[in-house]
Amino acid sequence: MQPVELVSEEGLALLERNADVILQEVGIEIRDYPSAVARFAAAGADVDGDRVRFPPGLCRQLVSTAPAIYTQHARNPARSVQVGGAATVFAPNYGSPFVHDLDAGRRYATLADFENFVRLAYLHPHLHHSGGTVCEPVDVPVSKRHLDMVYAHLHLSDKPFMGSVTAGERASDSVELARIAFGGDLADRTVMTSLINAASPLVWDATMLAAAEIYAAANQATIITPFILAGAMAPATSAGVIAQTLAEALAGMAFVQLVRPGAPVIFGSFASSMSMQTGAPTFGTPEPALVLYTVAALARRLGVPFRSGGSLTASKLPDAQAAYESAATLVPTLMAGTNFVLHAAGWLEGGLAIGYEKFVLDADQLGMMATFAAGLDLSDNGQALDAIREHTPGQHFLGTAHTLANFETAFYRSETADNSSFEQWVEDGSLDAAQRANRLWKERLAAYEPPPIDDAIDEALRDFIARRKAELPDAFA
Amino acid sequence: MQPVELVSEEGLALLERNADVILQEVGIEIRDYPSAVARFAAAGADVDGDRVRFPPGLCRQLVSTAPAIYTQHARNPARSVQVGGAATVFAPNYGSPFVHDLDAGRRYATLADFENFVRLAYLHPHLHHSGGTVCEPVDVPVSKRHLDMVYAHLHLSDKPFMGSVTAGERASDSVELARIAFGGDLADRTVMTSLINAASPLVWDATMLAAAEIYAAANQATIITPFILAGAMAPATSAGVIAQTLAEALAGMAFVQLVRPGAPVIFGSFASSMSMQTGAPTFGTPEPALVLYTVAALARRLGVPFRSGGSLTASKLPDAQAAYESAATLVPTLMAGTNFVLHAAGWLEGGLAIGYEKFVLDADQLGMMATFAAGLDLSDNGQALDAIREHTPGQHFLGTAHTLANFETAFYRSETADNSSFEQWVEDGSLDAAQRANRLWKERLAAYEPPPIDDAIDEALRDFIARRKAELPDAFA
Repeated sequence: MQPVELVSEEGLALLERNADVILQEVGIEIRDYPSAVARFAAAGADVDGDRVRFPPGLCRQLVSTAPAIYTQHARNPARSVQVGGAATVFAPNYGSPFVHDLDAGRRYATLADFENFVRLAYLHPHLHHSGGTVCEPVDVPVSKRHLDMVYAHLHLSDKPFMGSVTAGERASDSVELARIAFGGDLADRTVMTSLINAASPLVWDATMLAAAEIYAAANQATIITPFILAGAMAPATSAGVIAQTLAEALAGMAFVQLVRPGAPVIFGSFASSMSMQTGAPTFGTPEPALVLYTVAALARRLGVPFRSGGSLTASKLPDAQAAYESAATLVPTLMAGTNFVLHAAGWLEGGLAIGYEKFVLDADQLGMMATFAAGLDLSDNGQALDAIREHTPGQHFLGTAHTLANFETAFYRSETADNSSFEQWVEDGSLDAAQRANRLWKERLAAYEPPPIDDAIDEALRDFIARRKAELPDAFA
Repeated sequence: MQPVELVSEEGLALLERNADVILQEVGIEIRDYPSAVARFAAAGADVDGDRVRFPPGLCRQLVSTAPAIYTQHARNPARSVQVGGAATVFAPNYGSPFVHDLDAGRRYATLADFENFVRLAYLHPHLHHSGGTVCEPVDVPVSKRHLDMVYAHLHLSDKPFMGSVTAGERASDSVELARIAFGGDLADRTVMTSLINAASPLVWDATMLAAAEIYAAANQATIITPFILAGAMAPATSAGVIAQTLAEALAGMAFVQLVRPGAPVIFGSFASSMSMQTGAPTFGTPEPALVLYTVAALARRLGVPFRSGGSLTASKLPDAQAAYESAATLVPTLMAGTNFVLHAAGWLEGGLAIGYEKFVLDADQLGMMATFAAGLDLSDNGQALDAIREHTPGQHFLGTAHTLANFETAFYRSETADNSSFEQWVEDGSLDAAQRANRLWKERLAAYEPPPIDDAIDEALRDFIARRKAELPDAFA
């Protein structure tokens, strides 16, 4: 499917000029990471303390070494994904400290929840990726939970996954675990794509840069993402958000390319609107959709893969608000030609919570997106001209050979929708979509079987984790 | 906003050729309406009993007299709408025998419900149109309810509306009532846009043709709509649905132009997919969206306004299914460049019911669509370059002059979403979106005030209705 372009060539060029102005006049603050400042200075940037200003075109030139497309290899080669080009990769929710389900309501997430969501993502054909911090397992010390998370992705799933970014040493641990899982040597293969967020406005901090540096040095991919609540971390107007996003992303991607030219890097954008009453982030509104379409177009012009969107909502429940807002984010995500979609399933409450029922409902929508993206079938069978020719006006097509031949595959079959009659629906218990989803995630988890893993590799992973856990202090903050 | 084109020029031309093949080889059955057959014969079609076959290009040539754009005049001139071109008109739900609200559940609709929905549509700024049979007032005899419905549109609202189509004489009554309301003479102004459905596959019946004829003769607009459940009323494959839709619509629009060349006519398309388990219609699936985009493009090539889409769902409740499916229909409706959108608010249960809460939730989404369609603001204020220039990295934008100046208008403000913190939301009663919408429709109806109407006109309308009711038999079927 061709991506939808909403903004003219001239409009996009204007926004690129604005980003250059921002990079040149205001610049980027590189907080507490002098080696990054030094790298930028050596590349030709103007340095004034922590502030780095870029001559027009410098960042763009540095980013030109980044690949337009890369393969993220999965433990199961059949599940490796292409990132970039015409492909869209759906990955689950990321980063929520809370979890929600209809039975227990909202509560802190645990490692058991984390593992459940890794299982649910593994089981769903339209989640191409296992994600990263699907939720925060807050029952495990912060200093150690990255080990359990990466291990969960590696042994409960065989889909591609994300590494830890909350400290340089956690990124290093992620790389080590990946090395063990992939046979001791990554051989420059990219097996992780990890999330690096800016401290918007116009700041990159030491934690994120350190993680990005470790991943880039190992030829692992990073998603360089300005994270912007419009009106707070950027101006309230969309064109301002877009230019600032481009400026911040250019600087971050340039850093990655300075560490290792050619290291895979994704241009990320996360932009939400804001409630005027409370200052809270809002989702599914028109402005972030306009930003998404426009930044996607800018990423295409830059020649790098693009990440944005997802199934975002401010709702606390898997209700109509959650679904409207998620769809109003996910449809533009697809139509804009987004290559990597974090938060594609499960997100609730502005990202503070991941929902079991929401996850099931969202994943169903991802299947619909995949069918839609395949486009119109104009084959002879699709045209069905002979079927119509052989037909008498007024006759139904239900029993015809063409209908029977196409019945199984003609329409996307929703996993969660109820399409039965009102009477049948009442007889089935008058369940709403969330209640049906509640049944589904339990059925799926009950039927889950882990993918095979080599015993020696599994043991080596556990040994590494045990050793690191013994070395690391217990810290919960 | 430029409409999104999903299918290539060649693909569209292929589908047009297929429609020509269908019109030429299979033809259209004109059921029980010999005068229409005679009109087609006189225009050059081949007639064999009820079957009318069209030489390639004949229908297209006849349709060429239809206007690309027309104005539907409203009783209040400020509310007149442009149909066609870049405009999108949102009209409410149509035709449901049942009504749903959270308090009383699902029940047969009454005239009181009908009037309530006319009030709710009148009150909402993003419903541009009052609609027609918003629901079926089943407590009024079928033979008379058209009079009450048209009167409700005329005195409870001053937005444009639709006339009755269930019998020729009811269309005539609608025209008479419109004449009275618009000062005794319509002077060729178009003041009604009414819905004419095909009896797919490939049949136009006497009832619909009679109504279309009456409206066209009075220069009133009709929406010529093949109504297709794919797999039943057409082949199960989308390209087959599209070619058949084009063939049926071409024949219907050609008839309207034969009645009165230049009479405004809309190319309508209603296509749903089907549940393989039950044969029930399904909504919000990818296939109808592909049909919608494609038929919209074919209507543009034909040079007539296009109607399709809406906020469609098979759900019985205003739940997550309803919202996902509605959004998965409404977003393509907008992006495809649809000119007239029936069922834009309220639809539930495959159209069998209209929901009060659903209506409120959908209308909110229409507002979002309007904001999105306005596109990206690239004015100096929108670019916000000076605001960023004056800024130090790391500082928030919340208190800046630019943010303060744009705060009120920067983001679409949802009427129904809850964006507050979890704790605040609990304090507010832990309501879901439907429960909040339940409050809203009651508040709106309580605050409703009818638009002014000239007393003499109102009396003349009532007199006409009283006279007609006395003449007509009470019939409920």
